[in-house]
Amino acid sequence: SRNGAPEVIFGQGKTPTQMVEIMGSLASRSSNVLATRVQNAAIEPILAAFPDATHYPASRLIALQRNVPAPATTNVAVVCAGTSDLPVAEEARITAEFLGSPTVAVYDAGVAGLHRLLASIDTIRACRVVIVVAGMEGALPSVVGGLVDAPVIAVPTSVGYGASFGGVAALLGMLNSCASGVSVVNIDNGFGAGFLANRINRL
Amino acid sequence: SRNGAPEVIFGQGKTPTQMVEIMGSLASRSSNVLATRVQNAAIEPILAAFPDATHYPASRLIALQRNVPAPATTNVAVVCAGTSDLPVAEEARITAEFLGSPTVAVYDAGVAGLHRLLASIDTIRACRVVIVVAGMEGALPSVVGGLVDAPVIAVPTSVGYGASFGGVAALLGMLNSCASGVSVVNIDNGFGAGFLANRINRL
Amino acid sequence: SRNGAPEVIFGQGKTPTQMVEIMGSLASRSSNVLATRVQNAAIEPILAAFPDATHYPASRLIALQRNVPAPATTNVAVVCAGTSDLPVAEEARITAEFLGSPTVAVYDAGVAGLHRLLASIDTIRACRVVIVVAGMEGALPSVVGGLVDAPVIAVPTSVGYGASFGGVAALLGMLNSCASGVSVVNIDNGFGAGFLANRINRL
Amino acid sequence: SRNGAPEVIFGQGKTPTQMVEIMGSLASRSSNVLATRVQNAAIEPILAAFPDATHYPASRLIALQRNVPAPATTNVAVVCAGTSDLPVAEEARITAEFLGSPTVAVYDAGVAGLHRLLASIDTIRACRVVIVVAGMEGALPSVVGGLVDAPVIAVPTSVGYGASFGGVAALLGMLNSCASGVSVVNIDNGFGAGFLANRINRL
Amino acid sequence: SRNGAPEVIFGQGKTPTQMVEIMGSLASRSSNVLATRVQNAAIEPILAAFPDATHYPASRLIALQRNVPAPATTNVAVVCAGTSDLPVAEEARITAEFLGSPTVAVYDAGVAGLHRLLASIDTIRACRVVIVVAGMEGALPSVVGGLVDAPVIAVPTSVGYGASFGGVAALLGMLNSCASGVSVVNIDNGFGAGFLANRINRL
Amino acid sequence: SRNGAPEVIFGQGKTPTQMVEIMGSLASRSSNVLATRVQNAAIEPILAAFPDATHYPASRLIALQRNVPAPATTNVAVVCAGTSDLPVAEEARITAEFLGSPTVAVYDAGVAGLHRLLASIDTIRACRVVIVVAGMEGALPSVVGGLVDAPVIAVPTSVGYGASFGGVAALLGMLNSCASGVSVVNIDNGFGAGFLANRINRL
Amino acid sequence: SRNGAPEVIFGQGKTPTQMVEIMGSLASRSSNVLATRVQNAAIEPILAAFPDATHYPASRLIALQRNVPAPATTNVAVVCAGTSDLPVAEEARITAEFLGSPTVAVYDAGVAGLHRLLASIDTIRACRVVIVVAGMEGALPSVVGGLVDAPVIAVPTSVGYGASFGGVAALLGMLNSCASGVSVVNIDNGFGAGFLANRINRL
Amino acid sequence: SRNGAPEVIFGQGKTPTQMVEIMGSLASRSSNVLATRVQNAAIEPILAAFPDATHYPASRLIALQRNVPAPATTNVAVVCAGTSDLPVAEEARITAEFLGSPTVAVYDAGVAGLHRLLASIDTIRACRVVIVVAGMEGALPSVVGGLVDAPVIAVPTSVGYGASFGGVAALLGMLNSCASGVSVVNIDNGFGAGFLANRINRL
Ligand SMILES: Nc1ncnc2c1ncn2[C@@H]1O[C@H](COP(=O)(O)O)[C@@H](O)[C@H]1O
Ligand SMILES: Nc1ncnc2c1ncn2[C@@H]1O[C@H](COP(=O)(O)O)[C@@H](O)[C@H]1O
Ligand SMILES: Nc1ncnc2c1ncn2[C@@H]1O[C@H](COP(=O)(O)O)[C@@H](O)[C@H]1O
Ligand SMILES: Nc1ncnc2c1ncn2[C@@H]1O[C@H](COP(=O)(O)O)[C@@H](O)[C@H]1O
Ligand SMILES: [Mg+2]
Ligand SMILES: [Mg+2]
Ligand SMILES: [Mg+2]
Ligand SMILES: [Mg+2]
Ligand SMILES: [Mg+2]
Ligand SMILES: [Mg+2]
Ligand SMILES: [Mg+2]
Ligand SMILES: [Mg+2]
Repeated sequence: SRNGAPEVIFGQGKTPTQMVEIMGSLASRSSNVLATRVQNAAIEPILAAFPDATHYPASRLIALQRNVPAPATTNVAVVCAGTSDLPVAEEARITAEFLGSPTVAVYDAGVAGLHRLLASIDTIRACRVVIVVAGMEGALPSVVGGLVDAPVIAVPTSVGYGASFGGVAALLGMLNSCASGVSVVNIDNGFGAGFLANRINRL
Repeated sequence: SRNGAPEVIFGQGKTPTQMVEIMGSLASRSSNVLATRVQNAAIEPILAAFPDATHYPASRLIALQRNVPAPATTNVAVVCAGTSDLPVAEEARITAEFLGSPTVAVYDAGVAGLHRLLASIDTIRACRVVIVVAGMEGALPSVVGGLVDAPVIAVPTSVGYGASFGGVAALLGMLNSCASGVSVVNIDNGFGAGFLANRINRL
Repeated sequence: SRNGAPEVIFGQGKTPTQMVEIMGSLASRSSNVLATRVQNAAIEPILAAFPDATHYPASRLIALQRNVPAPATTNVAVVCAGTSDLPVAEEARITAEFLGSPTVAVYDAGVAGLHRLLASIDTIRACRVVIVVAGMEGALPSVVGGLVDAPVIAVPTSVGYGASFGGVAALLGMLNSCASGVSVVNIDNGFGAGFLANRINRL
Repeated sequence: SRNGAPEVIFGQGKTPTQMVEIMGSLASRSSNVLATRVQNAAIEPILAAFPDATHYPASRLIALQRNVPAPATTNVAVVCAGTSDLPVAEEARITAEFLGSPTVAVYDAGVAGLHRLLASIDTIRACRVVIVVAGMEGALPSVVGGLVDAPVIAVPTSVGYGASFGGVAALLGMLNSCASGVSVVNIDNGFGAGFLANRINRL
Repeated sequence: SRNGAPEVIFGQGKTPTQMVEIMGSLASRSSNVLATRVQNAAIEPILAAFPDATHYPASRLIALQRNVPAPATTNVAVVCAGTSDLPVAEEARITAEFLGSPTVAVYDAGVAGLHRLLASIDTIRACRVVIVVAGMEGALPSVVGGLVDAPVIAVPTSVGYGASFGGVAALLGMLNSCASGVSVVNIDNGFGAGFLANRINRL
Repeated sequence: SRNGAPEVIFGQGKTPTQMVEIMGSLASRSSNVLATRVQNAAIEPILAAFPDATHYPASRLIALQRNVPAPATTNVAVVCAGTSDLPVAEEARITAEFLGSPTVAVYDAGVAGLHRLLASIDTIRACRVVIVVAGMEGALPSVVGGLVDAPVIAVPTSVGYGASFGGVAALLGMLNSCASGVSVVNIDNGFGAGFLANRINRL
Repeated sequence: SRNGAPEVIFGQGKTPTQMVEIMGSLASRSSNVLATRVQNAAIEPILAAFPDATHYPASRLIALQRNVPAPATTNVAVVCAGTSDLPVAEEARITAEFLGSPTVAVYDAGVAGLHRLLASIDTIRACRVVIVVAGMEGALPSVVGGLVDAPVIAVPTSVGYGASFGGVAALLGMLNSCASGVSVVNIDNGFGAGFLANRINRL
Repeated sequence: SRNGAPEVIFGQGKTPTQMVEIMGSLASRSSNVLATRVQNAAIEPILAAFPDATHYPASRLIALQRNVPAPATTNVAVVCAGTSDLPVAEEARITAEFLGSPTVAVYDAGVAGLHRLLASIDTIRACRVVIVVAGMEGALPSVVGGLVDAPVIAVPTSVGYGASFGGVAALLGMLNSCASGVSVVNIDNGFGAGFLANRINRL
């Protein structure tokens, strides 16, 4: 990791043995290591090898934080519509927290229930960066983007069925957002959104 | 036309000669004929052959109405975000009017400018059926659908560029709408929306 | 739920614990709650927590109806070709019934066996709204739409293989229907069709 | 051409000069030559070089027939819904005729107007092979296939707009036909259907 | 079944109970019943209920033949490249046999090993209809189509990986065949090919 | 425009008359107006009506700036590989400049010529936000993202042919970037990138 | 150009002025310059500015060769089926020649006319590298690959219509080739094939 | 196998019994047999039947080498970014070794960590052919291709999630590579790359 940033392991498709090995090797170079998309079979071996690591089941993250970063002085908002998108929202939120950005979660703000979003809008506007997570039609970032001036990082999720095509409908909706100030990361890439949000939050 | 409904001609891909011939043949069977997607070259010949026909340039419609239908007693709302989607919105609106449904146009209601939509919401709620026309991310029907109880007919348009894929992004957004009570017609199918809206409005 | 409508839970991707919690919370606000796409593991816990709830195995619905809605005075037809599309057809039919619309099921009407459809056509014509469910080539809504004047809600299903692409072939067929008065909901979205049919049926 | 069959030239993307040259070269080997998809610029040069050639404008075919094949004793039906699909239907029909199969055209048989199809069904049933041409949702081959016992050759056309995707919707509909005895050729491939129909008709 | 043809059941997505019920109901109307895509769990129940039925494991077919059809006097060739495409090839072959068409199997004829195909070409040419089954690039029907005069029914299979996209590459290859006389059925639709081949073989 | 930001017009699909009207109406509300994707026919009428407007031919922008914004104190880098991507790069750069962010252009940095990119890397690293514009395989943002710590806004372009699919290849490449800190806007959306870059640059 | 290789300009989307400027700048650094996909408007200006340049109309190439490379001692075969694929085949062939590899053209070898291919197979086998160009179903590289031991570079072309999808069918066919020793370049990328063939030919 | 090359079995979709049978039959004709994509259930039976066969678990290969080929005198480089792409990289590497080409593995060269790639570039440049394996955005072959003169064989992998679409993003990136001298094989086709690399390496 150039310049002291934490190391990150992409857990998908790695065996438990590989995970423990890579985590050990990275931990010897950097005090903070974050593993994403940790597969079920790898959780126990990692926690056994690194007893000071923390597992976040909802987001499939394991964090090893031996050196707490100086906290940022401004906040990152994480907005989503509800239970279904929560794993990705939490992946984004915990990543940002791990990197030292305080977060504010607004998790009941759906497009079809505007009043709940409007009730939280001042909370969201008080943040410096806004992550918006949405599946199905992916309209939430456009609506939020029209209400705030902060940069919006849109995260499409694979939540849905039929013509949601595993997140493609949400992804396309976000790329075509008519609101300015919105950019997009890969489907279900909560990690990428949290990482970028912290980057921007610390500028 | 079974049961006295007007006849409709699909103008795309038909020569001016074919258009005039078919229009004449239909006009002899039914007092009202609507031609959609009329190509430029066919306009003059049709208007010359049918001097009592009306041409609507913005929507590429030509209407021959020799027998005004009994007007419906309730209204159809047609909602869109602005200039770009206007041709499709007008195709829907004029079709509904042609079939005897009074319409209410709300043409400046974009997702990224919620205040304008909210300012018109009572007007929309006063209608019995709501047509929502949108291109790009196609989020408007979800937002409107969450605010009204009437059936919402969503019309994706091919307005946009890049990953809008000629209306596919909007179409997918609408099919995946998280608002209940929304159904969808083909990309740019203003006619189909207006026809169905009148059907429902007259139930 | 604005204006006393029942609450609906989207069961896919929710844990049994989440389902029971959300159902309890909604039941405290609204007398009627419908859970769709209920996963197998959640059925027992929900029925244990809500002994007055009804489970409909064929359609993956669980309904809690503590306040029977005033029945509509007109009927909704639900049409499909046979056994394969039945789960989606039943999801539509039971949703409409749950919301108070009487339904008429015509479940053996395939495009390649027109005589059976024609034998039922008067039954279908007697309904105020028609839901047509079809997989594979999705041609049934066009044929039905050409025979009835009622609004047709087309539901593509993921039934098929090969170039049916999980319902895409049926979806595209329905969006391109040459019959007027047809609109479309998402692949396998029986709930959405039943909800909208009741909306229209009660206008 | 192995075994005396006529030679065929694919006219798309060939210059007028190339067309005349190839046509001359083939005409010296085979008494009958058919050029398909002849581009506008090539028509005059070909007709000038081969005064006994016949141009069929609606189908973009040019036929040079110096040796009339023995006519088949059974007929090929060509069925479509109307004006828009006519160019492809005519390409199929004239190809079959050119190869010696008498044809019967039924050109007003749409899925949404079943009564017209049913009125012609005996005519169609009297044929040995049936070509069905359809754009938009491409449902016609399924309906016809359910009514006849002859092999059905389905030809999707690029007629339509929006989610017809240049004929893909019709193609998928036909590939997923629930009627047995249906096979499919490429979008707009009237030539291929006419060629195969004659092959089967002469078995 | 109009005109005494056997009845066919589509086994995919049907429960064992549904299979036995439908099979019984059809067997009471028609002496011959063919079940395709029979799921593993349904095999035993069906064979228990219909002891005179035959199960073909390689092709997932179960045939109940109580009335042997008059055999056709000409043959159907079934051509494929090898082990991987065999299930689909056998589905086609047994369907044709079940309907009374004698078949000839040429199962080692790959495009990249032309000598084996050429060694069998006279056998294939002696047949009245040719079914060609191929996965991956789907080139075999074009090569065979260039060597024979009989109608060729091309069956793409889902055999392959990566950019074969579950049979789409083979399907597209076959639809774009430069050989005349080739038509195509759905991916993995051995049944449809066998049915149509018998139809043509009996003309 | 909430909070004094400039107004923006999307020029695509608008008639010259509509452009002049909308521009006038916006100019009366906001001192700064930017028109994007201005079609050729609209340029003269706009410049005639607004003599103080500036036209940027390479990027299809017309800017009316009557109130120069306070310049940002940090820079935005705009990186691309060369001539082909220049229109989109310039759209991004001029948008950022129009909004008051000084920009640094590095326009000869292709992935296949790393030495040129490495020669400019210190210039790029000195900027607070980096826009990377790339067509074809869209690999440049990943390479740049691995070399800088600033947030990277990736803009896919429609430059390319064949399997570039109008920018889809580049878009997918960028969404799947293995470098952290990268987010993506729509294909050819230079405006969106410039707008967001200024937003972030002013935090 | 590292290591004395010729410089190449991608002509698509470049203005005549840009072409002349870039060509001049490259010619001052390297004695040999090749411009690909030269647009019509740029031909005259380039030939006027570089009178010793050669224009190859069929392949849209302009070559400036001031230093003839040492010829390779082995040959590159370029194989295609006929007139339609010729522009891409010639782009490949002339590129290879320009780089010093002698070429052998076999331009009448279609998959549906195997005898012509087999008649030329010894000529092809005598070459060290084989380029195979094909549109429509793209089967030719598989057939050739099965007959030769040399590396085969497959070039899909956009020739075709309907489900050829601008070369996608051919591309997929080639990527899924069952013949070993085949690799693929972009649709219509004759230049890339010729460049790589020369690279391999000179090993 | 024409000309004494080893025989290869495609293990996917073959039963253990089929594998053992085919392997035995091929081993009787050729001294060297390679089985690819060997499914887990087939490993034991094959090793039991052929005790001198070697199983390579990481790459799903089983090799039976009874006649060691004369080793090539030049090397093949195999380059990838890390753990995730290793199975495909190893399939390529072992295939090339099996065919007698010595290989050099560079397995930690990611696009976002250029310094590691640059540290190994001389090792790579010393090879005669370079295989580059990459998932996600597939940018590595472009970067490597710009740094070496050897032919580059690009292998996209299905590693990734979301918009990687099972390797499609990487495949498209590679087909659109702006580096010359790059060609592409199917997604996850390590075998094809190793086979072709050996072919070229032995020229
Ligand atoms: N969930 C994730 N999505 C996208 N990129 C990731 C994710 N987790 C880790 N990464 C990136 O992958 C790199 C580690 O990949 P690896 O070496 O395969 O563990 C990190 O530097 C991150 O940039
Ligand atoms: N099967 C379904 N398909 C589409 N939308 C649904 C479905 N079931 C429920 N919904 C919608 O999803 C909302 C509930 O989502 P959730 O809060 O995730 O349970 C409801 O208000 C419905 O509008
Ligand atoms: N419209 C068409 N669609 C598909 N294939 C065609 C068509 N016209 C001609 N062909 C085939 O293309 C071959 C001639 O191609 P060419 O040599 O390029 O003129 C003929 O043998 C036909 O099999
Ligand atoms: N027809 C072509 N297809 C693909 N790549 C090309 C083509 N022509 C040139 N190139 C590549 O594009 C580079 C030049 O691009 P440019 O600087 O935009 O002219 C050359 O170095 C070639 O590698
Ligand atoms: Mg905003
Ligand atoms: Mg609503
Ligand atoms: Mg109707
Ligand atoms: Mg039939
Ligand atoms: Mg043939
Ligand atoms: Mg970075
Ligand atoms: Mg070979
Ligand atoms: Mg290179």
